[in-house]
Formats: sequence, C-alpha cells, structure tokens
Amino acid sequence: MRILLVGAGGVGSAVVPIAARRDFFDHIVVADYDRSRAQAVVSKQVKPGQGAAEATSPADARFSAIGLDASDQDAVEAALREHDCDVLFNAVDPRFDMPLFRAALNAGAHYLDMAMSLSRPHPSRPYELTGVKLGDEQFALSPEWEAKDRIALVGMGVEPGLADVFARYAADHLFESIDEIGIRDGADLVVEGPDGEETFAPTFSIWTTIEECLNPPVIWENGDWHTTEPFSEPEVFDFPEGIGPVECVNVEHEEVLLVPRWVNARRVTFKYGLGDEFIGVLRTLHKLGLDSTEPVRVKGVEVSPRDVVAASLPDPATLGERMRGKTCAGTWVKGVGKDGRPREVYLYHVVDNEWSMREYGAQAVVWQTAVHPVVALELLARGTWKGRGVLGPEAFDPVPFLDLLNEYGSPWHLREQ
Amino acid sequence: MRILLVGAGGVGSAVVPIAARRDFFDHIVVADYDRSRAQAVVSKQVKPGQGAAEATSPADARFSAIGLDASDQDAVEAALREHDCDVLFNAVDPRFDMPLFRAALNAGAHYLDMAMSLSRPHPSRPYELTGVKLGDEQFALSPEWEAKDRIALVGMGVEPGLADVFARYAADHLFESIDEIGIRDGADLVVEGPDGEETFAPTFSIWTTIEECLNPPVIWENGDWHTTEPFSEPEVFDFPEGIGPVECVNVEHEEVLLVPRWVNARRVTFKYGLGDEFIGVLRTLHKLGLDSTEPVRVKGVEVSPRDVVAASLPDPATLGERMRGKTCAGTWVKGVGKDGRPREVYLYHVVDNEWSMREYGAQAVVWQTAVHPVVALELLARGTWKGRGVLGPEAFDPVPFLDLLNEYGSPWHLREQ
Repeated sequence: MRILLVGAGGVGSAVVPIAARRDFFDHIVVADYDRSRAQAVVSKQVKPGQGAAEATSPADARFSAIGLDASDQDAVEAALREHDCDVLFNAVDPRFDMPLFRAALNAGAHYLDMAMSLSRPHPSRPYELTGVKLGDEQFALSPEWEAKDRIALVGMGVEPGLADVFARYAADHLFESIDEIGIRDGADLVVEGPDGEETFAPTFSIWTTIEECLNPPVIWENGDWHTTEPFSEPEVFDFPEGIGPVECVNVEHEEVLLVPRWVNARRVTFKYGLGDEFIGVLRTLHKLGLDSTEPVRVKGVEVSPRDVVAASLPDPATLGERMRGKTCAGTWVKGVGKDGRPREVYLYHVVDNEWSMREYGAQAVVWQTAVHPVVALELLARGTWKGRGVLGPEAFDPVPFLDLLNEYGSPWHLREQ
Repeated sequence: MRILLVGAGGVGSAVVPIAARRDFFDHIVVADYDRSRAQAVVSKQVKPGQGAAEATSPADARFSAIGLDASDQDAVEAALREHDCDVLFNAVDPRFDMPLFRAALNAGAHYLDMAMSLSRPHPSRPYELTGVKLGDEQFALSPEWEAKDRIALVGMGVEPGLADVFARYAADHLFESIDEIGIRDGADLVVEGPDGEETFAPTFSIWTTIEECLNPPVIWENGDWHTTEPFSEPEVFDFPEGIGPVECVNVEHEEVLLVPRWVNARRVTFKYGLGDEFIGVLRTLHKLGLDSTEPVRVKGVEVSPRDVVAASLPDPATLGERMRGKTCAGTWVKGVGKDGRPREVYLYHVVDNEWSMREYGAQAVVWQTAVHPVVALELLARGTWKGRGVLGPEAFDPVPFLDLLNEYGSPWHLREQ
C-alpha cells in the first residue's frame, strides 16, 4: 500500500509517528500546501517514551514530502499517479473533501477521510429541517466507487470513526434492540500560557469546530433526520477516568448521519462537552460575522474571517507541551440487552496528553483523531476489511478494529451505566 | 479658509452636510484612501428635514474629492500644497494621527483632530502606571507649532471635544473649586437587523472602540496620572432625556489627559456606558487575539485581525436607517460652587438618531462627533478662537463655542444633580 497523506497539520503530523511503528504500508507521501511543513513532519522522528523533544533517530525512508494544493483536483490526481499511490488519506479541513474525493475516484485510488462533505442548511427552516446533509455529496457518488471496485471510507477518525465502530459493536454483540445511540465527547484539558496561567487555546482545528458547532445540529429520530437550534438540549454527562461531569450540547456531527445507515436505533445524537467559555466564544464569533467563510475585502486583499480567526490562534498541533489533562470520545448506548433486559453502556477511549506527548510527541486530541484511520488502513491493507463504494466505519466488522486498537497500545473500554 | 478633510468614513461623511449649511470656509477637499467613497460623500447633498433618502439638490461647488493615503505623509503634504489648504481636518483612525500631524506642520497648515496620538502601555506595570500617554507624541512637538505660529487643535470631537469645553465652562463660570470631572457617555441606541430583530452592530468605529476599551484606562488623581485594569470601577449613571440608567466603566480616553493641562481638578475620569454585551464581545476579541493590529499571515496575504473585525461588521455610517434611540455625551462636575456651597452638575448634549437622520442623513453617533469640529473651525475662521501650538479644546473660551453650538440647532443642557 502506497498512501498519499494530504495535510501536515495537527492530525497529519500525528499520523506519521503512529504509522512509523507499523509495517503494513510501503510508502507514505506527506503532502501540504506548505511543503516545508510536510518536510518538517517527515523529518521529525519520535522515539517511543522520549517524546518530540528527544527526536534524534534518522529519518524513515518510507516517508517523503511534497507541496500540494488540496483544492486543486487536477494536481491531486497527478500526484496520486506520479507517486503511484493506491490510497488517498485526507487530513485537511472538510471544505477540501470534494476535490480530494473526486481526485481519488478519477485516479482509481481508495479514499479515507475523518469527516464528510459539508452540509448546507435548509433555506427557509434551518432549525427544523435538514438541507444538504453532511456526506450527501459523497454518498451520491457511491455507484461510481462501486463500479470502480474502490472504497471511499468516510468519517474514519475518532468521532466520527471509532464512535461508529462502537455503535456497530454494540448492535452486533451487546444489544437485542437499541433505543438511543448518543455520541458524547468531553475533556478536562487545559492549556497554559507563556506565564503559566490557564489560557484560551482550542485543542482542535478552530475552523472545523466553528463549522460543526454553528451549523444546525442534526438528530436522527424515528426514521428520519431533523435539526435544532445550535447548542440545544444541554445535558451534564459524567466522563470516565477522572474527567468527571461536563456540560454537553447538540452539535452537527457525521455519526448522526452515518450510524442509522448501518445500525438500527430509534434515536442518534451527538453532544459535545464544549463548556460555557467556548460556547460564549463561538456565539460572539457568529454575532460579529467572524465565523464566515465568505471573503471580505481588507485594505486591498481578500480574506475569509474564519481563516483569520484560525491564523490568530495558536496551531493546536503545537500546544502539546503546554497542555494537561485527558480527552474522552465515546458512544453511549441504551436499549434491550442480549438477555432481554434493559441495558445501558458507554464504550469509550481516553487519551492522556502526558502519555501521547511522551510516546508520540503529539497532543492528545490530534493523536486520538490520528490513530484510528491508521488502524483502519492497516485492516484494509491486510484485507481484513473489504468492500466497495462509499462506506462508513460501521459498515465493517468492528471486532478486528477494536482488537488492533488494543495492539496499538491504546485500549478502549466499556462502562455499564 | 480652505480645508483638507482626510477621511470619508462615518464622521467625514457627516461633516460635509453640516459644513454645507455654513459660510465660514471657502472650500473643503474631501480625501479618502478610496476616492470613490470621498466622491460619494461630496455628491450626496441633503436637504434639511428630508434626510438622505430625498437627496436631490445639485452638488455644492465648495466641495471636491480626491484619493489620498493617510499613512503617506509626503502625499498628504503635497495634497495640502496642491489644493492650497490652510487647515488639515483629520477624520481617520487615530493610528494615522502622526503622519497627518507632521504633514500639516511641514506644510504650514493648521491641524484639527478628534482624538490624539496613541498610547503605549507601561512595559512592566501596565495596569498601575502610564507608559507613553495619549497625545504625548503630539505635545512633544508643540514648540515647533508655536514657532510656526500655527494651531494643532487636538481632541476636538464630542468626547474628547465638547466634553472638554464643558469642563472649562464649569471651571470658569460654575465652580469655585472642582473635586472631580467625570466624562460620562451613554446611549439607548439599538440597531435592527434585516429581519427587524435587534442585532449587534457597533455605532462607532470598532477599530477605535477596541483601542480605547482594551488599553489600560487612565485616571488623573491628586496631580498625576495612573492606570487600572480594563473595564474597572463599574458604576450606574442615570442619563437624561429618557435614556435612563446605564452601567459605565473606566476607559482610556483623551479628556483625562487634556483637562488637567488647563483646568484644576483633583480627579478626572472617563466612563463609557458599554453594556454587558459589548464588554463580553471585547473580552472575547482580546482572548482570541482578534484585537491585534499586528499582521498575521493568512493563505499568502498579511492582514491585521482588528482590520478584519472592522471589515466583517457593517460600516457604522450606513446604520442610520436601521437605528433607533438617543446618544448622550457629557461632563459631570462635582465641587464647590461660586456661592461657596457644594454643587454637582451634568453638562450634556443629546442627539436623537431620528432627528439627525431626518435633518442631515447621518446617524446620531457620527453626527454628534462631526458637529463640534465644524463649530471649532468656524470659531478659528472667524478669529474668535486664537492661539499657537498644540492645544486642547479647554485652552479656549468655552462661551462662544457653546453659543455657536446652539446656533447650529443642536443645543446643550445643564442638569443640577
């Protein structure tokens, strides 16, 4: 397997040290708009247990770096052919999903991303009805992928990704029937400023966070999707491993669109433990129009306000040394167990920033997003996971995935509620 | 008098219809970075009582428009000479004060602005001690203005401006001795969105508002200046003419630097009725670094985040049709009256947006800022106000100013407290 990894940001830079310890692939070409950023990721080798600060081992010849504009479909196709890659691994903002997805289709490569093509709200009733849904543009092209006998594995990060694998696992092995599948994401991460005080610094792409949090949240209920106002249905969820109770709100997320396609459940939701401060920031950005992706003209140049917000904040990938705490992703399932009695479980995965920094030189949130697509690629390379067309993580057998995740040294857990 | 008016933004565009009704000047050249904006201001004639919507009268030949970069001192000097202007009227953001101030000095013109040169916080104790104060750079050059027998009238808008005239009036005619002069600014203005709902839209330059609100507020007390944390000493002030109680906080403002140079008072403060929502917005902008004027690199271009914030919000000058309410500027003076007994007065000036739109096609806040420098220019043109060097509004006799303001149809008031 030869992989074109597009994007050397937070997740892309964490993929490299994870993949470097595995032998399922022949080569990974790391591509970024800024070639020097890709080169830096390839050159930085991390020894287990020593973190990034002790990066001294020689470069791994299985990785190389190129400059590539993810919005230029022709250039991406050419890169796939030139480097003879059979998989495109998309690790850039979801706004680039469609050019990358089409490039892989045209070039005859498999495709993997960690999100899905973007939604557009309902034109007149955005907070009641769905418009164009997450992934709609991708699923519309599924017949073409099937005809070419190629897989487009969409939503294969942690959330979506592992959360969807958990949903399928619960349906296959734990429940007779499922009432609700609720993805719940929370953390107790804090970032220290240069003065040692806690500071405001998002630990994941602010571009993507604005997109998912300010779009109308989507809910699957009784056989159909509907939307609500942003930040709806606040609820306190008690996260494991010492994170504790965090207030969570509805957020638009891919799992709600993916899970019902392969798993029977009366209701599917996604709630994110944003916290009051972050919700206040997002509301203010929206109030000022700074969430907008439409360019504004500023002193002779055109920029999108959301890009400026992202550029003004520290790069989440660089925060690891200043972060403390754990992040938890998981799937809360309620229904009737195999024994016919009511059952409620939370299947989850926790990453401690101290551990991910020491082991991989990557901060917890991006490391947690990066590990699952690598596991999935290994299953595809081995032929354990097979298929054709546009597929979500819940389309595959979850057991080999969960076993291999344990083998990667990052175990998952089950908590009876 | 021939005037070069630099800046056709909110205030500049309101100056033109105010000056158009007066005959003290020969010509006003309206200059803007965007020449078409200057031309639009010159071409829009407003008939009293009919507002901007009924603008039909032919253009006034005493106004003309040019393109000019306010940051290019040489170009400004050349424009003053080419158009034979004897006054430079600065109506752009205060970051352009120094190139404009120096251009006028070199070209032998008088100078008027509505703010002062910018401050820089104390390097180690910013919330206790002053660093470079507002106006310091301008006052340092006062001997050169004196030598050339020219006036640089600084801080001559409404606040600073009228508020300083009020302070001098109180000292000359109402008080034997003054304990505190507190400038207090409040409004009940609301802006309707396209859907008729109240919306967030600052009614004055957000660039300037960020500058003054996030810098350490400055206070004059017992013969010296000191600073505090932003938004300090919240206090509810009851504004007149139906505006009512508004929470006000300390903000860095020019009056606190100007008043003590000419008027004896134990304490001088400036408090702004920002309201909770606006304070929250400003705190968030600061938290995200979006108040910064340092350029950030965004997809191959460089922009300052604060400029992007300004570009993302509606131009305050365009909001008049969607605004309702009144704005109040005034000076609260406490001390011992001429009769030897304690006295407390609030000298104030209120503009109703409905009135300013109908009479001048200008929204209340920019109109209120624009009228006072025009009154001052008329007093200079008549020779009523005379002087040399860098002077604040309180350096002159306040009575002819207050009388002429009444003649402009916008009376001031005194409330005994």
